[in-house]
Amino acid sequence: MKFTLKNRFWIGTEKGPFLRFGRIELLEKIDELGSIKKAAQAMNMAYRQAWRLVKSMNEKAEKPLVIKQTGGNGGGGTKVTAEGQRVILLFKTIEADLEEFLSQKNSKLNS
Amino acid sequence: MKFTLKNRFWIGTEKGPFLRFGRIELLEKIDELGSIKKAAQAMNMAYRQAWRLVKSMNEKAEKPLVIKQTGGNGGGGTKVTAEGQRVILLFKTIEADLEEFLSQKNSKLNS
Repeated sequence: MKFTLKNRFWIGTEKGPFLRFGRIELLEKIDELGSIKKAAQAMNMAYRQAWRLVKSMNEKAEKPLVIKQTGGNGGGGTKVTAEGQRVILLFKTIEADLEEFLSQKNSKLNS
Repeated sequence: MKFTLKNRFWIGTEKGPFLRFGRIELLEKIDELGSIKKAAQAMNMAYRQAWRLVKSMNEKAEKPLVIKQTGGNGGGGTKVTAEGQRVILLFKTIEADLEEFLSQKNSKLNS
């Protein structure tokens, strides 16, 4: 039988989770589509749930990760901030490093 | 707000989990108490559930991790085998290495 090292990681706070896989995916979709509603639809997630996740992240972050822009030439929309981009990159970097670390362990499991 | 890198890992197979935290704890308790029943009681786990977990591990392992010894001078009992000891150590080693890796990452999270 083949053994595989499995793993889930997330960034938590004393007030519950800050960043998890699904939350990062949501940030990326908002960044891509410029709308929480469209991002939620693309992920088959209820808008209410997506909005709740964004609120949870914004409240825990040092600066908001997602902001609503009203009016202006572009007619407004929802934007992932520079701080939002930073935490996406942070999470992805940890993910990649962890995967590399685990794949080394994994090769030892089946030897 | 303080951020903490959280993590769960386990060793899986194509037929479901092989080793997880709770299963390792169960193996250690069986090793300590010489009985699945007593180990289950010590963990506030139903005997049926403990027995099911042992069965799942034994079926997936290359050699059984827990064996029943009948008769003999000691009157029999349940024993964690050398293979069982080996996988406990393997799991603990991965756990310790992963904790060290994550604590390095963690110190970067709040800087």
